[in-house]
This record gives sequence, C-alpha cells and structure tokens, in this order.
Amino acid sequence: MDKGDGRIGEMVLNATSGTVSLEVLNRVGADNLSGKILIDVSNPLDFSAGMPPTLTICNTESLGEQIQSAFPSTRVVKALNTVNAEVMVNPSLVPGAHNVFMCGNDAQAKTEVAALLERFGWPSASIFDLGDISSARGTEMYVPLWLRLWGVVGTSHFNIKVVSA
Amino acid sequence: MDKGDGRIGEMVLNATSGTVSLEVLNRVGADNLSGKILIDVSNPLDFSAGMPPTLTICNTESLGEQIQSAFPSTRVVKALNTVNAEVMVNPSLVPGAHNVFMCGNDAQAKTEVAALLERFGWPSASIFDLGDISSARGTEMYVPLWLRLWGVVGTSHFNIKVVSA
Repeated sequence: MDKGDGRIGEMVLNATSGTVSLEVLNRVGADNLSGKILIDVSNPLDFSAGMPPTLTICNTESLGEQIQSAFPSTRVVKALNTVNAEVMVNPSLVPGAHNVFMCGNDAQAKTEVAALLERFGWPSASIFDLGDISSARGTEMYVPLWLRLWGVVGTSHFNIKVVSA
Repeated sequence: MDKGDGRIGEMVLNATSGTVSLEVLNRVGADNLSGKILIDVSNPLDFSAGMPPTLTICNTESLGEQIQSAFPSTRVVKALNTVNAEVMVNPSLVPGAHNVFMCGNDAQAKTEVAALLERFGWPSASIFDLGDISSARGTEMYVPLWLRLWGVVGTSHFNIKVVSA
C-alpha cells in the first residue's frame, strides 16, 4: 500500500451490504480483483425479520471466508467490521484505548492493511491480528453483541478494549 | 438472594457443558427448578471437530433461551459466560475496568444476580444488563471471538471493556 513515497497502492474495500457482497464482487469480476488486497468490512446481516438482525452466515463459516474462497487470487483481509463506519476511519471518536481486529491468509496484505489502519488513527498496538481468514467467524459473530451493547450505551460511537492480566 | 440479613437465597447455577445442559436440567426436574433463579453461565460449544469449537445453537436462538423455554417457571439469567471461570468469581484477575453482561426476562432476578456479581467483585457499573433472555444470542456468539482473542493475548485471564463516547 504505502509505496515508500507516501502514495497508497491499489486496495479494494468491500463495504457493501453483506447479503449482496458476493454478488457485487462477482460483477466486479475475479480478473479485476486478482492479486489485489480486498479489505472486507461487511457483515452478513439479515434485517428481513426486523431488529435485531440475524446473520445469513455464521458459526461454521463466515462471509470473509466465502469471499476469500470465491476469489482465491485476491488477498482478503477482514477488518473494521466490529465498529461503526465513522469510528472505522476516526477511532478518536471513541475516547481512550480500544481495539480493532483483522484477519486474513496473507501476512503481507495484513501488514499493508495495518499501515492503512494506522493512517486512520488506530495506534499500532490497538490492531489485533487474529490469524487466518477463518477468524472472520469471530468478528462477524461479535456483531449481535455489538447491537445489544449499542442499545445499552446509546451511541454507535463505542468499541471494546481487550484487557488482560 | 440477599435476604437483608446477609444470607444468600436459593439460586441454581448451570455450569454444565452447554451441549448437555438441557439434559442435565431435565434430570434435575422442572419441579425442583420452579420459581428459582437459574444463572446460566454455559456455552453451547461443540469440540467434536477439534479447535476452535463451533456452537451447537446460535444466531436465531441461544442456549439461554432454550433453557428459559424448557423451564418457563424458572427465572433464567444468562451471565458470566463471556469470561474464564476463574475470572467469573474473581474479576480482579484482570486488571482495571472491564465488563460483565447479563440478560433475562425477570427484572427482580437480574437485580439479585447483579448483587451476587458484586459479591464476586464486579463493580456495579461494570455489570451491563443487555435486556431479555434473547440477548444470550449476543453473549454466546461472542465466544468464538473470545477464543481467538485468547490465542492472541496468551492468557485466559482477559476480558473486554466497553468504551463509549
């Protein structure tokens, strides 16, 4: 991404609704996505039965994995899907320290995504690499808790901080 | 629970493996559980395909809801299932502020469970009431993320703190 001269290289950001992400990306075309880093911030939320939504995919698979599977030449990094869109690019909207998660199969791609996250304002230490793309199950399945927390805290400008001994 | 004289009233704690909780509780018998508060700390984890486990129930239902449904005269409060067992009863194992979640359909039962959590060392402000028992979907579905975070932080003595604007 950062080419050393401060320019940003080519990345694709999937911020489409999770229920149509695969269809949209198929229309973009595998050839156009080949070799590129795709940051997947989407969540497979089904609002058809009202609030709170359920997930169309979960538990034994995830949308992140399905995208990686459908586009094997694309380097998918799941990231940012655990916070509100405004917080994604402006983490200081939430005071103090809090964490952002990423996962993916390509180490170099994750390094480049982390650099982009730092440009958004996420401190390096706040970025947790959860491993390969299957960890997208973890971050996508967190969203039902996020939705309930939203109801309690009363603002979408919140996040979680991992605290450990 | 707290009868005003410092004694703890009758509560049932379901700390069985989530995959057998309903069977075990059925053997205990609905009559024996009737009217009582049941704190459900279990998670429906299926380890049969190895690590990480998947959930046997999720998304459109939860184990907490299934228990409430199976024992309608019992006041089920889902709580503590988002932290390691040692942290449940000794939150100071994790430094600083962090949160514990509870949900259930009976407000009085939640008040009594909150009082018990405070005795365990959870500050009143750290206890989040997420609403009715359907919020157990949120706390149970958080467990796959917990498992990945465990791998990153390297200790089960960790938790999350909700940070908001």
